[in-house]
Amino acid sequence: MFKVKVYITLRESVLDPQGNAVKGSLHSLNYKEVEDVRIGKYLELTIDKSERNIDELVKEMCEKLLANTVIEDYRYEVEEVVAQ
Amino acid sequence: MFKVKVYITLRESVLDPQGNAVKGSLHSLNYKEVEDVRIGKYLELTIDKSERNIDELVKEMCEKLLANTVIEDYRYEVEEVVAQ
Repeated sequence: MFKVKVYITLRESVLDPQGNAVKGSLHSLNYKEVEDVRIGKYLELTIDKSERNIDELVKEMCEKLLANTVIEDYRYEVEEVVAQ
Repeated sequence: MFKVKVYITLRESVLDPQGNAVKGSLHSLNYKEVEDVRIGKYLELTIDKSERNIDELVKEMCEKLLANTVIEDYRYEVEEVVAQ
């Protein structure tokens, strides 16, 4: 079994209105030292072992469904979990 | 300057309908090996140096605004960036 952590972020060049709104809120709470906020998604997948390579599988799922690669980047970490 | 990465996840005991929906979509795309999906948020903050301790600052921001600690857990990583 694998635990896969996927991080999906907006590409550098894409505006992040949600992040800007959070920055504004932080400023109004007097956290003026906050320069920038970017918001992304974080997914934890639990995946059973299959005959397919786990990297290939995760990449395919990201490209097809999880990330919109036109405006988003993704990266992931795979951790193998040994059943007890 | 600091780059802070904040990971906000739903607590273990809280249902994740968004994650379930994504799991359903992955199954219908024939990724049957996906056992579970949990969806959280990932924030990248850029924070200027101030007289306050960075850990204290980030914790306070998470508790006050970024995470809903009733249903969410958060963790973060701080990385110091040296201006060039």
